[in-house]
Amino acid sequence: MLSKNTVKFIKTLHQKKYRIQSQKFFVEGEKSVLEVINSGFLIDMILVTERFYERHEGKLKNLNAEILHATQNQLENIGQYRSNETALAVVNMKPNDRFSFPENELVIALDDVRDPGNLGTIIRIADWYGIKNLLFSSQTADFYNPKVIQSSMGSFTRVNFYYGDLKEVFEEWGVPIYGAYLGGSNIHELKSPAAGVLLMGNESNGISKELEPFVSKKLTIPGSGEAESLNVAIATAILCDNFCRLNGI
Amino acid sequence: MLSKNTVKFIKTLHQKKYRIQSQKFFVEGEKSVLEVINSGFLIDMILVTERFYERHEGKLKNLNAEILHATQNQLENIGQYRSNETALAVVNMKPNDRFSFPENELVIALDDVRDPGNLGTIIRIADWYGIKNLLFSSQTADFYNPKVIQSSMGSFTRVNFYYGDLKEVFEEWGVPIYGAYLGGSNIHELKSPAAGVLLMGNESNGISKELEPFVSKKLTIPGSGEAESLNVAIATAILCDNFCRLNGI
Repeated sequence: MLSKNTVKFIKTLHQKKYRIQSQKFFVEGEKSVLEVINSGFLIDMILVTERFYERHEGKLKNLNAEILHATQNQLENIGQYRSNETALAVVNMKPNDRFSFPENELVIALDDVRDPGNLGTIIRIADWYGIKNLLFSSQTADFYNPKVIQSSMGSFTRVNFYYGDLKEVFEEWGVPIYGAYLGGSNIHELKSPAAGVLLMGNESNGISKELEPFVSKKLTIPGSGEAESLNVAIATAILCDNFCRLNGI
Repeated sequence: MLSKNTVKFIKTLHQKKYRIQSQKFFVEGEKSVLEVINSGFLIDMILVTERFYERHEGKLKNLNAEILHATQNQLENIGQYRSNETALAVVNMKPNDRFSFPENELVIALDDVRDPGNLGTIIRIADWYGIKNLLFSSQTADFYNPKVIQSSMGSFTRVNFYYGDLKEVFEEWGVPIYGAYLGGSNIHELKSPAAGVLLMGNESNGISKELEPFVSKKLTIPGSGEAESLNVAIATAILCDNFCRLNGI
């Protein structure tokens, strides 16, 4: 039975302050809920429609989580999806652990990327290119925001991340930092990039002045048209594709 | 003076059927309104705040359009922006003219791309890479949808497009069609693409069966991660970047 208190509690998770307080977040929709079941995330409960339950009974029975039956209307009332005829899971956040630089890999760092849709899309891009580790400045959108979870299309289950002071991390790591700028070197002319960090700036202001001294190479995406800039998720994708082409990172 | 009837009329333009009926659409925000003033679009009227008027009086005076003073509240009530302290223009649509294949160029064709944000982002990408011509299947999102205009960031003023039956156009043109597929040839191994059409499919279903016979080369973006797919705007950007790298199209 779905109690009023449970409904009320899950609804608080739309807001960041309550997510932080409880250290929990929610995941909606068939694909994302199935991905989170198969991931290392610890699940507290899953609200399921009859239909979802029948289709995935096996997976649900082996799970150490409370299974609560709900109607489509209830799911749509509780979550943010306009239409949800499948499931909604309440999941525990992971600890925000600082990680060491992963040797021979590329790490994506975001300097105040504020839009949850952009963050989710960048997580999906990282997962496409096999980039496992991301760094987020404290002002970057919240990983556990329902819109981030939604736009990552399940990829949120497969990346490792740390929120903190990028400057401190860069100082400690001492690896090459590739920064996305307008007016840097043409990415198509980059010959053999080393492992390091791909740093992307804020949607309006780009990379902050404070981080500029750490950037070892400024990179630009060449374009012969007249648009002034590209969306940050689009630019991340193009740069990742170029790194992937050059050294399979 | 801003009359009630004018307000009522502009509000109808949120809906496609009224845009089609009147052959007009609206454009919001400082950047986009300035771009449309500098474009070939015919403007009927511009609602301006005092602040916008003072900053751009010169440009407005030379314009053959009605200038109406409005408050920020009025602009936010009429348009879709949560915050608009600048301007809103009512603009005439362009005729939907079929165009000939532009020799030695790349054309982007969209097969039922439904999300307005994706369409706007793709228009911005085309404009970045200097791709001037786009083809849209009839079920593709409406170019004049306010969300498309917004996410194109002014690039909607610099592209040429035609809505119609892609099959008919492809039959007539007889040029190479590069289709984005999962499981096609690795785009990084493409040596020297010819001019032609880059065809992108629907968000959920990809390129329709009906158009598949026209595809001369299936292209795939290589990724070593686990994400099942990329967003259509992201994939368009990566493919355009690869074409640009290979032959400067």
